[in-house]
Amino acid sequence: MAKHSILVVNGPNLNLLGVREPQIYGHTSLKDLENHLKDVAKELDVDIECYQSNSEGDIVTKIQDSRLNKDFVLINAGAYTHTSVAIRDALTGVDLPFYEIHISNVHRREEFRHHSYLSDVAVGVIAGFGLNGYEYALRSAVDFLGRNR
Amino acid sequence: MAKHSILVVNGPNLNLLGVREPQIYGHTSLKDLENHLKDVAKELDVDIECYQSNSEGDIVTKIQDSRLNKDFVLINAGAYTHTSVAIRDALTGVDLPFYEIHISNVHRREEFRHHSYLSDVAVGVIAGFGLNGYEYALRSAVDFLGRNR
Amino acid sequence: MAKHSILVVNGPNLNLLGVREPQIYGHTSLKDLENHLKDVAKELDVDIECYQSNSEGDIVTKIQDSRLNKDFVLINAGAYTHTSVAIRDALTGVDLPFYEIHISNVHRREEFRHHSYLSDVAVGVIAGFGLNGYEYALRSAVDFLGRNR
Amino acid sequence: MAKHSILVVNGPNLNLLGVREPQIYGHTSLKDLENHLKDVAKELDVDIECYQSNSEGDIVTKIQDSRLNKDFVLINAGAYTHTSVAIRDALTGVDLPFYEIHISNVHRREEFRHHSYLSDVAVGVIAGFGLNGYEYALRSAVDFLGRNR
Amino acid sequence: MAKHSILVVNGPNLNLLGVREPQIYGHTSLKDLENHLKDVAKELDVDIECYQSNSEGDIVTKIQDSRLNKDFVLINAGAYTHTSVAIRDALTGVDLPFYEIHISNVHRREEFRHHSYLSDVAVGVIAGFGLNGYEYALRSAVDFLGRNR
Amino acid sequence: MAKHSILVVNGPNLNLLGVREPQIYGHTSLKDLENHLKDVAKELDVDIECYQSNSEGDIVTKIQDSRLNKDFVLINAGAYTHTSVAIRDALTGVDLPFYEIHISNVHRREEFRHHSYLSDVAVGVIAGFGLNGYEYALRSAVDFLGRNR
Amino acid sequence: MAKHSILVVNGPNLNLLGVREPQIYGHTSLKDLENHLKDVAKELDVDIECYQSNSEGDIVTKIQDSRLNKDFVLINAGAYTHTSVAIRDALTGVDLPFYEIHISNVHRREEFRHHSYLSDVAVGVIAGFGLNGYEYALRSAVDFLGRNR
Amino acid sequence: MAKHSILVVNGPNLNLLGVREPQIYGHTSLKDLENHLKDVAKELDVDIECYQSNSEGDIVTKIQDSRLNKDFVLINAGAYTHTSVAIRDALTGVDLPFYEIHISNVHRREEFRHHSYLSDVAVGVIAGFGLNGYEYALRSAVDFLGRNR
Amino acid sequence: MAKHSILVVNGPNLNLLGVREPQIYGHTSLKDLENHLKDVAKELDVDIECYQSNSEGDIVTKIQDSRLNKDFVLINAGAYTHTSVAIRDALTGVDLPFYEIHISNVHRREEFRHHSYLSDVAVGVIAGFGLNGYEYALRSAVDFLGRNR
Amino acid sequence: MAKHSILVVNGPNLNLLGVREPQIYGHTSLKDLENHLKDVAKELDVDIECYQSNSEGDIVTKIQDSRLNKDFVLINAGAYTHTSVAIRDALTGVDLPFYEIHISNVHRREEFRHHSYLSDVAVGVIAGFGLNGYEYALRSAVDFLGRNR
Amino acid sequence: MAKHSILVVNGPNLNLLGVREPQIYGHTSLKDLENHLKDVAKELDVDIECYQSNSEGDIVTKIQDSRLNKDFVLINAGAYTHTSVAIRDALTGVDLPFYEIHISNVHRREEFRHHSYLSDVAVGVIAGFGLNGYEYALRSAVDFLGRNR
Amino acid sequence: MAKHSILVVNGPNLNLLGVREPQIYGHTSLKDLENHLKDVAKELDVDIECYQSNSEGDIVTKIQDSRLNKDFVLINAGAYTHTSVAIRDALTGVDLPFYEIHISNVHRREEFRHHSYLSDVAVGVIAGFGLNGYEYALRSAVDFLGRNR
Repeated sequence: MAKHSILVVNGPNLNLLGVREPQIYGHTSLKDLENHLKDVAKELDVDIECYQSNSEGDIVTKIQDSRLNKDFVLINAGAYTHTSVAIRDALTGVDLPFYEIHISNVHRREEFRHHSYLSDVAVGVIAGFGLNGYEYALRSAVDFLGRNR
Repeated sequence: MAKHSILVVNGPNLNLLGVREPQIYGHTSLKDLENHLKDVAKELDVDIECYQSNSEGDIVTKIQDSRLNKDFVLINAGAYTHTSVAIRDALTGVDLPFYEIHISNVHRREEFRHHSYLSDVAVGVIAGFGLNGYEYALRSAVDFLGRNR
Repeated sequence: MAKHSILVVNGPNLNLLGVREPQIYGHTSLKDLENHLKDVAKELDVDIECYQSNSEGDIVTKIQDSRLNKDFVLINAGAYTHTSVAIRDALTGVDLPFYEIHISNVHRREEFRHHSYLSDVAVGVIAGFGLNGYEYALRSAVDFLGRNR
Repeated sequence: MAKHSILVVNGPNLNLLGVREPQIYGHTSLKDLENHLKDVAKELDVDIECYQSNSEGDIVTKIQDSRLNKDFVLINAGAYTHTSVAIRDALTGVDLPFYEIHISNVHRREEFRHHSYLSDVAVGVIAGFGLNGYEYALRSAVDFLGRNR
Repeated sequence: MAKHSILVVNGPNLNLLGVREPQIYGHTSLKDLENHLKDVAKELDVDIECYQSNSEGDIVTKIQDSRLNKDFVLINAGAYTHTSVAIRDALTGVDLPFYEIHISNVHRREEFRHHSYLSDVAVGVIAGFGLNGYEYALRSAVDFLGRNR
Repeated sequence: MAKHSILVVNGPNLNLLGVREPQIYGHTSLKDLENHLKDVAKELDVDIECYQSNSEGDIVTKIQDSRLNKDFVLINAGAYTHTSVAIRDALTGVDLPFYEIHISNVHRREEFRHHSYLSDVAVGVIAGFGLNGYEYALRSAVDFLGRNR
Repeated sequence: MAKHSILVVNGPNLNLLGVREPQIYGHTSLKDLENHLKDVAKELDVDIECYQSNSEGDIVTKIQDSRLNKDFVLINAGAYTHTSVAIRDALTGVDLPFYEIHISNVHRREEFRHHSYLSDVAVGVIAGFGLNGYEYALRSAVDFLGRNR
Repeated sequence: MAKHSILVVNGPNLNLLGVREPQIYGHTSLKDLENHLKDVAKELDVDIECYQSNSEGDIVTKIQDSRLNKDFVLINAGAYTHTSVAIRDALTGVDLPFYEIHISNVHRREEFRHHSYLSDVAVGVIAGFGLNGYEYALRSAVDFLGRNR
Repeated sequence: MAKHSILVVNGPNLNLLGVREPQIYGHTSLKDLENHLKDVAKELDVDIECYQSNSEGDIVTKIQDSRLNKDFVLINAGAYTHTSVAIRDALTGVDLPFYEIHISNVHRREEFRHHSYLSDVAVGVIAGFGLNGYEYALRSAVDFLGRNR
Repeated sequence: MAKHSILVVNGPNLNLLGVREPQIYGHTSLKDLENHLKDVAKELDVDIECYQSNSEGDIVTKIQDSRLNKDFVLINAGAYTHTSVAIRDALTGVDLPFYEIHISNVHRREEFRHHSYLSDVAVGVIAGFGLNGYEYALRSAVDFLGRNR
Repeated sequence: MAKHSILVVNGPNLNLLGVREPQIYGHTSLKDLENHLKDVAKELDVDIECYQSNSEGDIVTKIQDSRLNKDFVLINAGAYTHTSVAIRDALTGVDLPFYEIHISNVHRREEFRHHSYLSDVAVGVIAGFGLNGYEYALRSAVDFLGRNR
Repeated sequence: MAKHSILVVNGPNLNLLGVREPQIYGHTSLKDLENHLKDVAKELDVDIECYQSNSEGDIVTKIQDSRLNKDFVLINAGAYTHTSVAIRDALTGVDLPFYEIHISNVHRREEFRHHSYLSDVAVGVIAGFGLNGYEYALRSAVDFLGRNR
């Protein structure tokens, strides 16, 4: 049986990870995070592909392209979480299960960040667990795929 | 007198037509739909150009480029219907009459799909007529252009 | 097999068609419109019955009476679109599929005309296509009945 | 002393009882229900009159006509519950105590059915007790009239 | 030059005037009021027609019928003031200027009576002046017609 | 028995009457209006005092000063209608009955002019009757005082 | 076949029945009410258990404890009707059908009593029928259990 | 240095875990879950105490009692998440960092479950990860305590 | 004549007074506060009973128990101020006058603390006067009882 | 060290104290109140200045003038509490601590009196304690100044 | 041709400029600002008049007095921006174009400062440019008058 | 010391400047505007870079790229002002001060243009000053940088 394959999507401004406000977000760069996730994926014996874009349309297209060759999506859509129906539609359109991830606790921030266009169609949501959130979501996704195999 | 020329715009995720959820949307692909519209255009003796993009910015630019060489726009803006002021501004900026099209009846879906940034500046709106909606809109646009010639 | 039979309902003030504000609504009277729809029905080989009333209760009763001898309803409920739960209940009660029609684009008009008690239970909605909307709805209804035969 | 006299009003679409959706509403027709209520009235030694109309105006007039010869009203205003200030005004105008009845539990249905123009001026409300609700309301009305004689 | 002709419309429950709650509304019946208005009309040398109905549809039709033979409408739409888009549409459809009248001060009553579907298309509104409101509106209408002759 | 005495209050910007936008408000100045009202008062055998101020505080004080020597207030509070709780409190504090007057139909204007801090404590409201509104209110006030003598 | 068993729950402050405001609630105490219900239960040949508590948590636990040995719940949750998601969750968690009961007509009281966390998951709601409501609910529950046996 | 100590709080109805709706929540009981967490705690070399109650007040008291002898709280407040300011105040009062846990994805459920009184004062929130959420929260808490030692 | 007797209720988390955040709330414990109030009561020659609980249900019961042997209630319901209809009902049920007390100025805190279920049925409200608020409320209660003796 | 100096401001309509509605507000005049406060001030060894105005602008100016020679403000802004941002700005501009006072319990009155532009920048708020509120506020202000000396 | 003449209005609390919170607003006094604007006016060859008041009514009167002798208004209405319909009416009444100025960025401040009664009738709005805003507005007004001469 | 460097961003549809609706926006093209700003920058001795895009993602990336080599941003985000959290996040992420510019007065336009995702994090906002707004913002930015050097 083929390995499970997981897409990790990071949205706008997450390319600045480790660069912007390190006192808050730490010194880990997006590259570091992706490498760590790849190590965890190897340990869990799944394939993983990491993708980042500032463009809503490109993220939509990337998700569409995963329709046939991915089994789960981990997505931190950043600001698009709160404004993009198109990314929601792409995720429900390809009918892949996904976890919604936020590094910080969005509920402590501005009112408009309390609403997400993704949460009610996600399998689960994790926020405020820092970069740990990605690893937990990856492990839980593999667990989910195992249960639903 | 030159023929009338009509732009057909399909927004995000509509490239998956016929592929995604065929039991709901049928087996007609976007390509099939566009070919059918071209046949109808030939019958009606008008020019037609079909365009699809997942990118809000690219749709804005496409509409701008139609300012001088198109007479009417048929647009199914998909998810951008509910979130894009930029596409609205492009349409009012080029001052072309347009019909807003939705394949499914958006009023049967989530609350956030009940609001459209396009409806109050459109000539008309058609939703829930399936792919027929495009042909009806095309025929009505030609009718409209005839009356306002 | 018996012919399909379709009911066309026009609500309050639509009896003034062609009389009231002809510069906006044109010179076509309700009688003219109904005659045209009958011609199209003949072409499509379906039966059609046209009905108009200013009374909410009478429209409810008319719809009830169609329970056993009609297959589809085309309805322009006029002002009752925005205030009548009773007409909605009659339509869902007889369980007939229906299209909601508006001659003008209601989204360009007062805020209170943006809400409809019919849209979320209709098969589809067409607004702003002028009198063409009736013919398109009739053709699409026949199409619908053919697909669901 | 004259017998007490009670008016039972059923609003729009309730004439379809037993006909429409029997799997939900059962096979009891409006006529059956009214006969049963008349039997109960006989047992309780009160007069009863049953009335049904799809017309808001006719219901208003019927209530007005009860001003001098009825002591209590049982009303299932159907869809008019949620839209008719006129029926409310008729009921408060004739100053008769009344119970508001709904066969199904309206709180399980659409949001717009959660508001009633009658509840805050009714003696009581019963919803979701099926056709039992009418009999209970009738018995309780007689009880009420006994206490307030 | 022909005399001006004015339609006076009273909506649901106003037929109970002088009968219902006389301690509040006084002992003047609707007939008394109409007779008084006819006397004033004679003094002002205008024609007047008085109409009352509990039916929304009948009021719509009555207003439509005034399109060609009336110059002004005085309307106390009662409860329909707050719920009827159809009467609003009839009034704007026939394009007759009109005054909105309420015997009591609706702003002292329930919240839902503070909104009117007629006020923003009326020439003026008078509420809480008792039956005087009708006479003042009649006099002012004649004044209005004189100024706009 | 002493004559009844009535205070007429005009609020901010009404001193510009006849000067500002005469095509809308006509050429009658505030002085002209006040003189006309004094003539009507003489005819009705009541005392009248006219007052105008742009200052909310001064209007409050004027109303307070009327506590013992006035019987009724006619007030067009202009813009303060929509923003002043203090004037409301002064009017209810001195416990004088009053009519609220607006020259134009405020319901045709901006949304924020649809709410009044005075309406629910006024005897009545008249809007859109032009300068006639003052005379009608004066006549009706005298009528009111006669009935409540 | 074993008898059906029904739990009757009364929430906070209902222990004051017959003591508090007897002019409104009458002189019947909670004990009297419970005894009457037990008599009716005997007549209907069902078991009944009556419970009252002022504590939200205790009511939750009581409902949980009924999971295996009760068939229906009659609940007047008093103030917790409007604030307790926990009681709602307990009721849906044990998956027992239940009627919601209110002695007075809550729709005549403060705005915050118009919303209930129980209504949309109840079989039915009865309010304003006084203590009769309990008996009617009991009879209807037995009826319901008979139909769904 | 003393071991870190962590309190795990489960709110109302979570004692039914593994019993209620096992097809959804699985067959793991609360006891099983707590035992698993204790094993993880042992692995991570921290102390752990597990607590469940249906009573808001008892949960408040339990949290208060942890003020001096606990370092972190993991809380699934169940229904109290959406209604309890008291638990929020207890948590902020003892000034202990905490994670908010939900087994299911609350954003897929009723509207009233989308608001939490805890989220904006939590370190983070995890929902829809099933029972995994507890373990991840425990591991992340230990991580948090290590970083902030 | 018997002495007046006053109940002082402190709600959830107020048992932490003097312990929690002393830089804000000071070093006075709840015990200290209660002792001070007892001294003041002695000076004013009234009986006083002090009660604190974290449990909503227990507070309801305590208030009920005061129905016959207390004359006034001073209550700082803490978090339950904003969520408990049951405590409101207990207070209105026993029909005792009461003052609502908050140590801090709740209007400076989170939005959800700006609404109180108690304020509109209290005699008065004091917030932001620190512990002084209790003494002032006690003195004013005695004053109130003296005036209404 | 100089004595502390306190400004007492009373807003619109409070000059009518003791005159208006004595059955509610008692027979104490504003003058009586001010004299009582001066006596208390003497007892507490602080300076006090009392000021009343119906004019928002004058109150703003008075507060500004206190910037250098006052230490605390006691303000009952009356109706301006609910409408004046200017008074709020004056108070925060001069950066003096202040108590907000209301004689009656504003929460028992109209909805629009439940919002205050002052509360969230005040030290504290007292409402419904009658004239006692002023004395308590004065004593507490002196206490406050002592603690923050 | 006569010089253009411009009125500069500063509203409540702006007389404290340079005195209040100099660390935020700087040490420039209102007098300094006005002198600077006069120098700029001289350079631009226009007349300028500077006015400040804490009184809404006086500002209304000042604007009215400018009807015939001013060409443009620069207004920083301070707190009245958010509460005064009267100043709006004065500005639209005299029909002078005006710029709305705020020294600080009001959008960074309290929610109630985000709405302005002036913005939608102003030519433009400038906020957060410090005292520069006045000079820019003055220069732009002269530019505007030149273009519309 | 290096010169200050400023980025000027124009969002969607602003490339049509001078082309679209010249009667409103004038005949100045975007190129003309940018050239003028470059001249002003030269006069002020600062570097300037001008950028326009219809793509939200590209604008985000452009702002990110300015993190290290720009000192201030002038941004007219056009339609994205009202819909883009991503641009807001980019601006706050790079932590550069910025002015928000609108050519027309957005407060005179549709309701949805009254909200901006940028205003509360901008230094200032200028709207309705036409193309002057850009120059003023440029001059004020240089001023700002001088003060904060």
